[in-house]
Amino acid sequence: MANEKALTAQAEDFSAWYNELVLKAELADYSPVRGCMVIRPYGYRLWELMRDRLDLRFKETGHQNAYFPLFIPQSFLEREAKHVEGFAKEAAIVTHTRLKTTDDGKLIPDPESKLEEPLIVRPTSETIIYEMFSKWVQSYRDLPLLYNQWANVVRWEMRTRLFLRTTEFLWQEGHTAHASHDEAEEESLRMLGVYREFMEEYLAMPVVVGEKSESERFAGALRTYTCEAMMGDNKALQNGTSHNLGQNFARQFELKFASEQGGEEYAWNTSWGVSTRMIGGLIMTHGDDAGLVMPPRVAPIQVVIVPIFRKDEERDLVLGKAREIVAALPGIRTHIDDRDKLTPGAKFFEWEMKGVPFRIEVGPKDIAKEQVVLARRIPEGEQRKEFLPEAEVIASLPQRLEDYQTFLLERARARREANSYRDVATYERFREIIDGDGGFVYAGWCGSAECEEKVKEETKATIRCLPFEEFRSPSAPSACLVCGQSAAHEAVWAKAY
Amino acid sequence: MANEKALTAQAEDFSAWYNELVLKAELADYSPVRGCMVIRPYGYRLWELMRDRLDLRFKETGHQNAYFPLFIPQSFLEREAKHVEGFAKEAAIVTHTRLKTTDDGKLIPDPESKLEEPLIVRPTSETIIYEMFSKWVQSYRDLPLLYNQWANVVRWEMRTRLFLRTTEFLWQEGHTAHASHDEAEEESLRMLGVYREFMEEYLAMPVVVGEKSESERFAGALRTYTCEAMMGDNKALQNGTSHNLGQNFARQFELKFASEQGGEEYAWNTSWGVSTRMIGGLIMTHGDDAGLVMPPRVAPIQVVIVPIFRKDEERDLVLGKAREIVAALPGIRTHIDDRDKLTPGAKFFEWEMKGVPFRIEVGPKDIAKEQVVLARRIPEGEQRKEFLPEAEVIASLPQRLEDYQTFLLERARARREANSYRDVATYERFREIIDGDGGFVYAGWCGSAECEEKVKEETKATIRCLPFEEFRSPSAPSACLVCGQSAAHEAVWAKAY
Repeated sequence: MANEKALTAQAEDFSAWYNELVLKAELADYSPVRGCMVIRPYGYRLWELMRDRLDLRFKETGHQNAYFPLFIPQSFLEREAKHVEGFAKEAAIVTHTRLKTTDDGKLIPDPESKLEEPLIVRPTSETIIYEMFSKWVQSYRDLPLLYNQWANVVRWEMRTRLFLRTTEFLWQEGHTAHASHDEAEEESLRMLGVYREFMEEYLAMPVVVGEKSESERFAGALRTYTCEAMMGDNKALQNGTSHNLGQNFARQFELKFASEQGGEEYAWNTSWGVSTRMIGGLIMTHGDDAGLVMPPRVAPIQVVIVPIFRKDEERDLVLGKAREIVAALPGIRTHIDDRDKLTPGAKFFEWEMKGVPFRIEVGPKDIAKEQVVLARRIPEGEQRKEFLPEAEVIASLPQRLEDYQTFLLERARARREANSYRDVATYERFREIIDGDGGFVYAGWCGSAECEEKVKEETKATIRCLPFEEFRSPSAPSACLVCGQSAAHEAVWAKAY
Repeated sequence: MANEKALTAQAEDFSAWYNELVLKAELADYSPVRGCMVIRPYGYRLWELMRDRLDLRFKETGHQNAYFPLFIPQSFLEREAKHVEGFAKEAAIVTHTRLKTTDDGKLIPDPESKLEEPLIVRPTSETIIYEMFSKWVQSYRDLPLLYNQWANVVRWEMRTRLFLRTTEFLWQEGHTAHASHDEAEEESLRMLGVYREFMEEYLAMPVVVGEKSESERFAGALRTYTCEAMMGDNKALQNGTSHNLGQNFARQFELKFASEQGGEEYAWNTSWGVSTRMIGGLIMTHGDDAGLVMPPRVAPIQVVIVPIFRKDEERDLVLGKAREIVAALPGIRTHIDDRDKLTPGAKFFEWEMKGVPFRIEVGPKDIAKEQVVLARRIPEGEQRKEFLPEAEVIASLPQRLEDYQTFLLERARARREANSYRDVATYERFREIIDGDGGFVYAGWCGSAECEEKVKEETKATIRCLPFEEFRSPSAPSACLVCGQSAAHEAVWAKAY
């Protein structure tokens, strides 16, 4: 049933707008389990399209999929000190393996089934995967191992939001082992590049890429690289990370190999992941007060066809034409909305809410004139609705979809640039921006954890990354934004999800 | 590294043969977590190919994928009495959500993080899915709901075997809701048909389909339908089931709808699933003493090309030709084995172990003669190896793969028929078969649980199904195999995995 109540406006309450939209567009729903989400078919189809594209790129870059256990022995988590520190406080712990009925008829975990060692539902799989790698790798000839898995993971978060931070989420985690530091470094940067390309070319979501500061590094990594996107409320979203793990895990899991020179060495690992969080990012990058805006390359429906008819005897004619149009658009994800009980207006409302890029309306008069109405979800720079010859629409739709994809990327990039600030010389100006409308602030940083922490405490803004060369300002900032000492890096600061 | 030690012969110890083969063919490995498996890339690719085909058929039959939470509140499991009875004894139970370090430095589940209500790692998802359905369904217009999810599930089994019975396994579970019993019945039979078609046409695995007896029904179902395959040791494997759940779950989860006539009714549900267990079935249906035998339609590699050269200066020539052959076979899953440190013999051994349908060998002399060597994994009825013109091999390979697919199905069907027994009139003859080489025994059953149980206790054979019409014997058995009373059904008995 269509629910034509409008969303809270973004300008009024961005957070409420987001929460309402996820539900109304039927992407996801709350579940009876605290913090866990149900991904509904429309949201899951979006995830499948994202997954299929990424999976293709992983395979093209030489990776193989595999599957490792859901459960991680507690002792595995303990081996890497920073790793356990990072995940101990949000662990779903399996302690028993049987339910029993008590004498008064209550069902309880059977004390006799208590596990000797608790099992942790994986928050990430470095430990169990490198344990297995250590069984499979003997010599440098067995390297590199280039693995990926698509899986669910659990982190017992206290404050959750659909897609952005949920107790259970879906993701992929790449795990590789190499014979040298440089090879691992190259791999972690390669996969960061694959993420960036995917986000820009498929999600139409421009990202700033760079390295994380030490305090924001993955628990157990040597270096963490990140893709940071700007949301519609000017906050940052960490959208995907890639880690050079050095030999930290290899040492703990005895992942050694006989080198070409004859010695025994620890392998070098990388891991990298993106998750259903990207769906949240997509919503907040492109969405507007009317609802979702789907980039065509990942849109579950690229073109929706709404047949318009008043009398029953027109129904067959109009539906027949709709089917003809669908048949003439092979390779495009189309949908005919043939529901009888809804008005065209209610259908328009729903498909706009769901962000479908193009809508074709066709009625008996249009058929007589061999024309259709073509409506574009975002009208900017074009007419909202146009009467066009049917043949022209069919011939031009593939290109229109590509143009719309490009338009969305450019629009998002322009938004980000309009809300990015360079040459911010004083902490006062920085606070003015961050405490005001927010945005990405590029400024100098001395490199000390103290200055980083002070900013975080006072403004809630964090260092999103130390951006790579191409994102840096033409002239490097000379002084730390906070302490005024000499700047070791240019950093991008922002409030973040 | 190739390990050229042969497998234990099937005839000597079928079970040892299976366990060795799963490891040696690198399909899966044991994990450090009791009963959980690691699916290695070769096994996972096989699963992906199975999944992609099934997923296509699910979508063609109108189903949508979605994703529901991993955790099920204990109280949900309790609501359907038979359901909880079926799963309480093999439940992985999450009781805590945080680890803490004790004063003496030990890491333990933090008592303060104990959950008020334990969560069960899903053994199957009827309960949580129908709870969600009840939120989404108001009227008959919202029906049917045709959902599927690809997920991991956990059943804490005591005795596990890779693929066949593991604590965690991968599967799909279809869940649907309908407005009437008949619609639900039609759906459960439709999906059983999709399974059968997939098993026969893709896995080359003939199945007997029919209904389960009451004692073998899914916990909470009205009727359970099954696909039963015969393994190489004449035991049965239940390879996929489809359940008409009636209104049992709808009643417990208040899944109601306003009917077209205006009343309020409980919906009718079905659920159906197949799992990574099918991989075990595939291994035991086709495999032989040399290893796996992969049906082409799901083979991760359909054709392996082994370049043969003695001198380094021949290497480029031969590898160039191998790449030419690959380029000439678009749409076929090929692999060039260009490893330098292995002899051709070691490579042949490995790819036979991995069950690759066809092998092409090519060396400098072959190139001069424009020929290759073509070897078929199962030579029966054809020459093992043939010298053939290269062009002929390239032109004929698609058809050869299809012929080989058909050959494997026919071979498996002939094996099954040779080990199926009808007209078994006496219990003595029945025991002779079951206690001997085993097989499927078609015989009369009075319908009583006592007779069924007696056979199980005395022989370990169970009723695999009450077969559908097309599988029944030309003349229906008149008496129960066990008690001699009048037969209510013809049943298929066998020992099973």
